Amino acid sequence: MAFCCQSPIKTITFPQSKSLSKPQKPLFVCNLSLPSRYPVISTEPEPVYASVKAFAPATVANLGPGFDFLGCAVDGVGDFVSLSVDPQVHPGEISISDISGDSAKKLSKNPLWNCAGIAAIEVMKMLGVRSVGLSLALEKGLPLGSGLGSSAASAAAAAVAVNEIFGGKLGVEELVLAGLKSEEKVSGYHADNVAPAIMGGFVLIRNYEPLELIRLSFPNEKELFFVLASPEFEAPTKKMRAALPAEIGMPHHVWNCSQAGALVASVLQGDLVGLGKALSSDKIVEPRRAPLIPGMEAVKKAAIEAGAFGCTISGAGPTAVAVTDDEEKGREIGERMINAFLKEGNLKAVASVQRLDRAGARLIGSIPR
Amino acid sequence: MAFCCQSPIKTITFPQSKSLSKPQKPLFVCNLSLPSRYPVISTEPEPVYASVKAFAPATVANLGPGFDFLGCAVDGVGDFVSLSVDPQVHPGEISISDISGDSAKKLSKNPLWNCAGIAAIEVMKMLGVRSVGLSLALEKGLPLGSGLGSSAASAAAAAVAVNEIFGGKLGVEELVLAGLKSEEKVSGYHADNVAPAIMGGFVLIRNYEPLELIRLSFPNEKELFFVLASPEFEAPTKKMRAALPAEIGMPHHVWNCSQAGALVASVLQGDLVGLGKALSSDKIVEPRRAPLIPGMEAVKKAAIEAGAFGCTISGAGPTAVAVTDDEEKGREIGERMINAFLKEGNLKAVASVQRLDRAGARLIGSIPR
Repeated sequence: MAFCCQSPIKTITFPQSKSLSKPQKPLFVCNLSLPSRYPVISTEPEPVYASVKAFAPATVANLGPGFDFLGCAVDGVGDFVSLSVDPQVHPGEISISDISGDSAKKLSKNPLWNCAGIAAIEVMKMLGVRSVGLSLALEKGLPLGSGLGSSAASAAAAAVAVNEIFGGKLGVEELVLAGLKSEEKVSGYHADNVAPAIMGGFVLIRNYEPLELIRLSFPNEKELFFVLASPEFEAPTKKMRAALPAEIGMPHHVWNCSQAGALVASVLQGDLVGLGKALSSDKIVEPRRAPLIPGMEAVKKAAIEAGAFGCTISGAGPTAVAVTDDEEKGREIGERMINAFLKEGNLKAVASVQRLDRAGARLIGSIPR
Repeated sequence: MAFCCQSPIKTITFPQSKSLSKPQKPLFVCNLSLPSRYPVISTEPEPVYASVKAFAPATVANLGPGFDFLGCAVDGVGDFVSLSVDPQVHPGEISISDISGDSAKKLSKNPLWNCAGIAAIEVMKMLGVRSVGLSLALEKGLPLGSGLGSSAASAAAAAVAVNEIFGGKLGVEELVLAGLKSEEKVSGYHADNVAPAIMGGFVLIRNYEPLELIRLSFPNEKELFFVLASPEFEAPTKKMRAALPAEIGMPHHVWNCSQAGALVASVLQGDLVGLGKALSSDKIVEPRRAPLIPGMEAVKKAAIEAGAFGCTISGAGPTAVAVTDDEEKGREIGERMINAFLKEGNLKAVASVQRLDRAGARLIGSIPR
């Protein structure tokens, strides 16, 4: 792992289990020094706001041939984190006061077992916050396990909120590392959701040790809409992971590599037809996973027949994502995708049409001290 | 194969063997109709020049993680084709009058067994030339089997020469298909040499059926130099091919895919540091092939220690290619690479520093009719 907290005073050991259901420590004591490659915050920062509210968008990872290294942010849906300086909370600690939204009941309020909490703690560590206690409220706009980067959105919003309440001293790379710490606990050490959730747009993860991110700017003058069709279906996470081939034949490797290159070129050149084609072109992961989501193959076919430039599984599913350049056409495509999920997969689904989110996680409100 | 000539009059069957050493037919009779996806040349074109001379540059294919789908053109070295309307040659046919250069003796003058001849014949077919005979002289500037796209350069120069002598009616895609016909006979159905040899710059081969090429523009205002170090060593072609793994583990696949994406982004963004890093990053092909070229690993190390942004094997070797942004530094890097070939591989080598060729195959002279 790229980021390793080592403290001369006290070593904090995170629980090893991936489960978030059993809290062990109610609060995190932030008394760690940071490895030298992180910004050295020589003096503990003062909060510049009494409270802030941050938003982080949904994300689509595993973008066709961009499996495990390329993701993008989707505007209009996401998670919210409200954060306040709270004298009731022990200095240097964080408390989760509230979780709202449809999936609230499934989430722990223990910050060590909550995506937002873990990321917030990491940012407090990086900043060296010892004298101020924080209270955090999480508003889930994204359903869990939908393939839209729900955990990453919580982590991203929390990381940005903590950073901003102390004056925004950390850069995006540090915030992504904080988010990664959270993702590692929940869904594996992958940054292709949390990096675009924080940075916006398309982000290519080039390396983890050290973390190297490449922002891929889709031209501002071009429109890009994502049609997200989410069925009422819990994607079997273990099966989705087990479905991945351990070994890949050279022809498929070369094919997917070339399509990954074509995808990157299409994004940077604003070539939506090329982007859609690349999105649809994965010969390695999608063919194994699509059969595990009832109706997915028919949904992809329906989207493309309805005029989408391309379609694939969002993240590990079950959401299907299609791309188009027109909002109205996007709605028609969404209807066709819903119908296909119902007809071929016997699944109810909802669809929405969203723009590319170019900004990433951001403050949407603040109250000065 | 994407391009298939079918004739209602007479079917020309190319010899099946890949060997170019045994001529079967001295001349090709161009009486084929073209499949409908090719430009329909309704009337046979008239030559607009009495003679032309074309140049096509060397190319670097298998660009690190761009194995088999990404190549680029290198200025300053390449092959020349002189082409004349020749009443002595039977109408609709082509004759190779001369081959010069160090490798001339190894090449056949039978157009059906010569890279330039095969490509020239293909272009004549596409244009529907039946009434004019052509005489072709090939000047080899590139050594054979060096990993610098020698056969592709001959094919590209010939394809462009034939097209231009008849007024340039075909587009680059058709010319690449003609070149591919030649490459197929010599080194396999790969366009990552012949496409950049014809188009210049960096070219990504996205698909073969149908042929889809993506031109990747490296920013004009940026300098990019290739240091080419060619040892006196015949890369064992069969061994080089056999060294490729049949299967690739998922982590290496994801790594190389992400590096391929990073390479494309670096080219388009003009990020030389990123480009070099991507070039050096291949974990699949280079690690298997480098040990077959004495000294290659040391040469790469020496190039990077001397300040190159990255280094890898050019094509299937034995040439090593490094990148830099400064011509003088390029010469130093080249010296260090030569020394490493000698010291660690016991091989004499020569090095040159060349700019990115942005134009591709082109006319360099012409005589009007």
